[in-house]
Amino acid sequence: MSYLEQSFSVKFEYKIYFTSSLFDTGNPILANFFKEKPSEALRKIFFVLDKGVADAHPNLVTSIRAYFAQHSDVQLINDIMIVPGGEASKNDTALFDQLVEAVNVYGIDRHSYIAAIGGGAVLDLVGYAAAVSHRGIKHIRIPTTVLSQNDSGIGVKNGINYKGKKNFLGTFAPPSAVLNDDQFLLTLNDRDWRSGISEAVKVALIKDPEFFYWIEANTAQLVARDMDTMNYLIKRCAQLHLNHIAGDDPFETGSARPLDFGHWSAHKLEQLSNFSVLHGEAVAMGIALDSTYSFLTGMLTEEKLQRILNVMLHLSFDISNPFIQINDTESPILRGLAEFQEHLGGKLTITLLTDLGTGKEVHQMDHKLLIEASNYVLNFTSTHAGLPLSDH
Amino acid sequence: MSYLEQSFSVKFEYKIYFTSSLFDTGNPILANFFKEKPSEALRKIFFVLDKGVADAHPNLVTSIRAYFAQHSDVQLINDIMIVPGGEASKNDTALFDQLVEAVNVYGIDRHSYIAAIGGGAVLDLVGYAAAVSHRGIKHIRIPTTVLSQNDSGIGVKNGINYKGKKNFLGTFAPPSAVLNDDQFLLTLNDRDWRSGISEAVKVALIKDPEFFYWIEANTAQLVARDMDTMNYLIKRCAQLHLNHIAGDDPFETGSARPLDFGHWSAHKLEQLSNFSVLHGEAVAMGIALDSTYSFLTGMLTEEKLQRILNVMLHLSFDISNPFIQINDTESPILRGLAEFQEHLGGKLTITLLTDLGTGKEVHQMDHKLLIEASNYVLNFTSTHAGLPLSDH
Ligand SMILES: NC(=O)c1ccc[n+]([C@@H]2O[C@H](COP(=O)([O-])OP(=O)(O)OC[C@H]3O[C@@H](n4cnc5c(N)ncnc54)[C@H](O)[C@@H]3O)[C@@H](O)[C@H]2O)c1
Ligand SMILES: NC(=O)c1ccc[n+]([C@@H]2O[C@H](COP(=O)([O-])OP(=O)(O)OC[C@H]3O[C@@H](n4cnc5c(N)ncnc54)[C@H](O)[C@@H]3O)[C@@H](O)[C@H]2O)c1
Ligand SMILES: [Zn+2]
Ligand SMILES: [Zn+2]
Repeated sequence: MSYLEQSFSVKFEYKIYFTSSLFDTGNPILANFFKEKPSEALRKIFFVLDKGVADAHPNLVTSIRAYFAQHSDVQLINDIMIVPGGEASKNDTALFDQLVEAVNVYGIDRHSYIAAIGGGAVLDLVGYAAAVSHRGIKHIRIPTTVLSQNDSGIGVKNGINYKGKKNFLGTFAPPSAVLNDDQFLLTLNDRDWRSGISEAVKVALIKDPEFFYWIEANTAQLVARDMDTMNYLIKRCAQLHLNHIAGDDPFETGSARPLDFGHWSAHKLEQLSNFSVLHGEAVAMGIALDSTYSFLTGMLTEEKLQRILNVMLHLSFDISNPFIQINDTESPILRGLAEFQEHLGGKLTITLLTDLGTGKEVHQMDHKLLIEASNYVLNFTSTHAGLPLSDH
Repeated sequence: MSYLEQSFSVKFEYKIYFTSSLFDTGNPILANFFKEKPSEALRKIFFVLDKGVADAHPNLVTSIRAYFAQHSDVQLINDIMIVPGGEASKNDTALFDQLVEAVNVYGIDRHSYIAAIGGGAVLDLVGYAAAVSHRGIKHIRIPTTVLSQNDSGIGVKNGINYKGKKNFLGTFAPPSAVLNDDQFLLTLNDRDWRSGISEAVKVALIKDPEFFYWIEANTAQLVARDMDTMNYLIKRCAQLHLNHIAGDDPFETGSARPLDFGHWSAHKLEQLSNFSVLHGEAVAMGIALDSTYSFLTGMLTEEKLQRILNVMLHLSFDISNPFIQINDTESPILRGLAEFQEHLGGKLTITLLTDLGTGKEVHQMDHKLLIEASNYVLNFTSTHAGLPLSDH
C-alpha cells in the first residue's frame, strides 16, 4: 500500500451591499460591480423574480431593463423569469428544470450571472440551480425580506425540497454578491416584517450583548417600521452571521449549529402548523422556550430571562401559541428534539444561554423541565402581555 | 451605499490509496480509514457498483459484505445498488433519482458515506448525487479503469449529462478518499486498458519531460499489460493531475485549461463518432494533431514531434482515424474549436508544445495549418506504423 495526499484551499470572497433603489439608473452599485471585474468573455445576466415581489413592485421589470440599457458591461437577457414566492418555489422541481432549461436556451456559461430577486425561498431555489448548472454559474442575490437580508440570503447555502423533505437537495455555494435594497421592505406585510427580527434577537443573544441591549431599546421603532432602525438591525445581524460563517466551519462539516439556537422546536412547530406559523415567528417561540429552559437549569438568571421574554412581547411576537405548548412527555413538539439530532447526524447539540449574549452547548434536554419551561412562558405571557418595557 | 465584506477559505484534503484486493478481509486500508476518523455519529456506508465491474467480478458484492462484517466501524447498508456502466449512467436522470431515493430510504446523512466502484462515468454520476444530497454526503471513489485511476476519478469534479449536453449538471466536490485497486484493471478489455494511457502522455508532454521519456521507454511493457509498469504510470499521472488541481484554481474559475491539451478535437471526435471512439483514444489523436500543429508553427522541432507520434503508434493508438482528418476548412472537426471556446466561456485558449514536457498557451489556431497538420499525421502513420522505436 502507498498513497498520495491531496491538500488545497479555496478562497471565497463576496460583498454584501446596502442600498436604496438598486435599479434607479443613477445607482452605480451594480454597474460598478461589473466594471470592477473586467472580462474578455461576453457576460450575460439572467434575472429571476419572486412573484410576490414582482406583484408588489409592478415597475420592477421595466426598471431592470432600463438599468441595463444604460449600463452595458453585461448583457441583460431580455426574458425575465417570474417564479411563485415562498416555500412553493422550493417544492416544485419543475421550476428547477425551467431554470436549467433557461441556462441551456440562453447559453448562460460560467462567466455569466443568474440574479435572483426575492425572499429566502426563491433565493434558495435559484442559488441551487445556478450552483449545479455547468458546475456553477455566478449567482447574485437580491433579498427582499427582512429574513433574507439579515440571514438566509447573505450566507453560503442553497437548496430545494425533495421527497417531502426540506432542503433535501442543495449545496454550499457562496454568491458573487448580495445586494440589500431597503425599498423592497416597504411592501412586506407586518408579519413578514416582524418575522425576520427574531433571527437578530437570536444571534444577539448568543454572540453580542450590546446588540441585544440595542434591540431592547428599539422595539417600539421596529414595530413602527422605522426604516433607519431596521437598516441598522439588518446590517448588524448580517455582520454577525457573516462572522460566524467565516469562522471554523463555513461548509458545516461538524455537528454543532450555534446559529440554530431556538431552532429545534421552531422547525417542528413550522411543520406542526403546516407552515401557517412563519419561520421567524417559530424562532421567536423557540427562543422563549430555550431561554426559559436555560433559566430553569440554573444557567441564566430570572431577571435576564424576563428581559428576553419582554423583548419578544414588545415586538408583538405570539410566544404562547398553542403549537409550542408542552403539556406532557407525549407532546408532539418534543419529537423535534429527536429530529434535530437526526438532522445534525451526530450527537444532540443544543445551544442554551448563560447570559444575554453568551451561548453554551449542551447535549441533552430534560423533558420534564421542558414542560415546566412551556408553562412558565404561558404564564408569563398571560400576566405581562401589553405592559410597557419600563415596568420590568 | 455601504457594504460588508465576506472572506474565508475552505481547506480540502484527501488521500489517494494504491492497493491490491481492497476487499480482502486482511486488507486494512479501508478499515483504518474509518478508524482514523472516530465519530460519535452512527456512520453508514452505501455502495454503488458499475454493472460492467460487477459482471467482471462476480464475487465483489460478497467480498464487500464479508469485509464490513469483519470491520464494523461503519455500518454497511446491505442493499448494494448496481447501475449500468459507461456514459449510459450519466445520460439517465432516473438513476440520479434512484440514488437520491436511496439516501432518503436508508437515512444516509452527512456523517455517512456513499462509495462508488466503477469507471469514470459511474463515479461522476454517484459523486454528483452525493454532492447535492443533504448539501453533501461524504463520497468515496473506487475507480476501476486506467482513465479513472489516473485522471477522472482522483479529482474534484462530478457531473451528469442533461438536455443532451455532457456534464451539464455537476459540482466541484472533493471526495473523502480515492482507493485505486489494481486488481480491477485485470478485467479491462485492451481498448479500455490502452485508452487511459493517453492522459498520461498528455500530462507528461505539458508538465514532465522525464515522465515522457519513461513512457517512451516503456511502451512495450504497457502494451503487454505489465502491471508494475501500469501501476507506476497511474501513480505518476495521478500525482501530476493532483499537483495541477492544487495549483492556482482548483474549482476552475478562470478560462485556461492546460490539462485539456489535445482535447478540443478529442471532444468533437467522440461526438462525431457517436462515442464509438473512446475518450482516451480521441485524446491520443488530439495530441497527435496539436503536437504536429506545434511543429508546423515552429514551436516544436520535428525530431521531438516524431518522438511523440511514435509513442502513440507504439502504444497501438490509431491516430489517423478518418474522424479526425481535416480535408478543408469545412471539416466538421473544426467546429470543435468554436465549441471548445464556448465551453471555456472566455477567449479561446489552447495549449501547444514548445518542448517535450513544456506547454504554451495560444489564443487562436489557423485552419489551413490544421489541414496541413492532419495530412502530416496521416502521412506519418502510413510510413511509420509498425516500425520499432529504435528506428527513430
Ligand atoms: N439558505 C439559507 O441559509 C437559509 C437560512 C434560513 C432560511 N432559509 C430559507 O428561507 C425561506 C424563507 O425565506 P423568507 O422568510 O425570506 O420568506 P419567503 O421566501 O418564504 O417569502 C415569503 C413571502 O413574501 C413574499 N415577498 C418576498 N419579498 C417581498 C416583498 N419585498 N414585498 C412583498 N412580498 C414579498 C414572497 O413572495 C412570499 O410569498 C425558507 O425556505 C427557508 O428554508 C434559507
Ligand atoms: N470528473 C472528471 O474530472 C472527469 C475527467 C475526465 C473524464 N471524466 C468522465 O469519465 C468518463 C469515462 O470514464 P472511463 O474511461 O473510466 O470509462 P467508463 O466509465 O465509461 O467505463 C467504460 C466501460 O468499462 C466498464 N468497466 C469499468 N471498469 C471495469 C473493469 N475493471 N473491468 C471491466 N469493465 C469495466 C464499464 O462498465 C463501462 O462499460 C466519461 O463520462 C468522462 O466524462 C470525468
Ligand atoms: Zn432561522
Ligand atoms: Zn481527458
